[in-house]
Amino acid sequence: MLWRDGTIVPGTHAPLDHTDRGLTLGDGLFDTALAIGGRVAFEQAHIDRLVASAAALGIPAEAERIRAAIRGLAGEGARTGDRLAIRTTLTRGSGPRGLKPPEDPSPTLFAIAAPSARSIAFAPLRLRPTAIARNDTSPAARLKTLGYLDAVLAAREAAASGFDEALFRNTRGHVACAGTGNLFALFGESVVTPPLDDGVLAGIVRGAVLELAGGCGLRAEERSLTLPDLLGAEAVFLTNSLRLIAPVTAIGDTAFASAGHPALARLMAALKASVARACGVAEDRVA
Amino acid sequence: MLWRDGTIVPGTHAPLDHTDRGLTLGDGLFDTALAIGGRVAFEQAHIDRLVASAAALGIPAEAERIRAAIRGLAGEGARTGDRLAIRTTLTRGSGPRGLKPPEDPSPTLFAIAAPSARSIAFAPLRLRPTAIARNDTSPAARLKTLGYLDAVLAAREAAASGFDEALFRNTRGHVACAGTGNLFALFGESVVTPPLDDGVLAGIVRGAVLELAGGCGLRAEERSLTLPDLLGAEAVFLTNSLRLIAPVTAIGDTAFASAGHPALARLMAALKASVARACGVAEDRVA
Repeated sequence: MLWRDGTIVPGTHAPLDHTDRGLTLGDGLFDTALAIGGRVAFEQAHIDRLVASAAALGIPAEAERIRAAIRGLAGEGARTGDRLAIRTTLTRGSGPRGLKPPEDPSPTLFAIAAPSARSIAFAPLRLRPTAIARNDTSPAARLKTLGYLDAVLAAREAAASGFDEALFRNTRGHVACAGTGNLFALFGESVVTPPLDDGVLAGIVRGAVLELAGGCGLRAEERSLTLPDLLGAEAVFLTNSLRLIAPVTAIGDTAFASAGHPALARLMAALKASVARACGVAEDRVA
Repeated sequence: MLWRDGTIVPGTHAPLDHTDRGLTLGDGLFDTALAIGGRVAFEQAHIDRLVASAAALGIPAEAERIRAAIRGLAGEGARTGDRLAIRTTLTRGSGPRGLKPPEDPSPTLFAIAAPSARSIAFAPLRLRPTAIARNDTSPAARLKTLGYLDAVLAAREAAASGFDEALFRNTRGHVACAGTGNLFALFGESVVTPPLDDGVLAGIVRGAVLELAGGCGLRAEERSLTLPDLLGAEAVFLTNSLRLIAPVTAIGDTAFASAGHPALARLMAALKASVARACGVAEDRVA
């Protein structure tokens, strides 16, 4: 199901200018959001982040148009009863040859909805550190850009070794993130996540966890972590908009009892309640 | 002018599956080649590199299909008398949500031809070093992938400061390349370019220059260079398939008399002759 230019069409095919800089140069952004019962969890945060990221790249973006795309697709999910992953893509649009952005860009906005299994929410994951660095020297490392090939390559390596996801460090050796999510570590009453300057996306669920921590008796901290720091944590977890909180049960050869950790259980319960409220559904619809 | 699925159509619009991983994840490659008089310079090298790069990413690629696309477009240029930049794009094709590549990918191949001004061949350039690192920890740094946003951002910075292009160092501080080309430095009888391991694309003109050096009385070397090394060179130049050899007249505040350097003049003459032979045209059609 594809939203394009104000219309929802079945399938995912539509005409596209093949000089679109999203397709030719990765010059664009995306967002992935979860819709249950016809409503998108943390809708405003998703829209705000996409608009702010677009501004950072100099791509014009209209919040109300993005909202129309997301809501249009979410509404179809309400009709069919599907739980949906809604991916919104914004590119700088087409342009002449070369890197230089057109002076008066005409951005391309489209969104695709696909069913998202409830079973992936809160499901545990095993991570494998990759030797590919997260390039924290680039502003793009803090944005959800279309350039995901490093993550694709690292995911392929991880899968070949029997792991679910890759763990990235940045060019200074700090832990940055997983291929598709932010990372957190629990140390006593502290819940720690790398700061954005370490080459980290301002994940929507990352933000929610930082806000919910206090109510769960935890102190939220954004500070740099080395891999040995992370391996010494009591529990580790990944956050993203579809998995919500994924307890990490292994990083390479190191096993973690994250899934049974009481503080993590409190955070998961708080996030589940928060998503249920945001979507206006009962908690058992979330996970 | 767009080649897609064996057919050339005017304009650049065509239907595309909006889940194409080239568009959604930058999961693909491209190549830019120069056609004069209906023939592509260094055609076989362009095709070989694209096929080898695709193999590195696990994307199926057929040399003869790529050749058909390039030749089809080049032939149109012969008809209209245009000198063409032919950009060939190969993506992993569409796939389900997530990073994991489909097991049986159905790649997307298309190519676009646009007029290329003769005046850019051998024209001088001014470079500005960027603080964004070339991510030499990733295999993608040695491939011409669709993820060019770092280069777009650095080009924007360079243009804002009155420069033509950005100069990238890698995560270890070695000189890597410019945003759209390889870099070379002349030191006495040595012509030096960074090795591929420094996060460098195996440029087609880079390869040609390494081959032509001996005949120009120069010793070709692939070795790492720091920025101070480069600033101490007698001459610096950029290579790519459209600019061919671009003498670098400034790197930041440091000026170079590259354009008048006799060894560089010999290399430019040799490359001009080589391109003319490859395209079967008189040398004055090249530049």
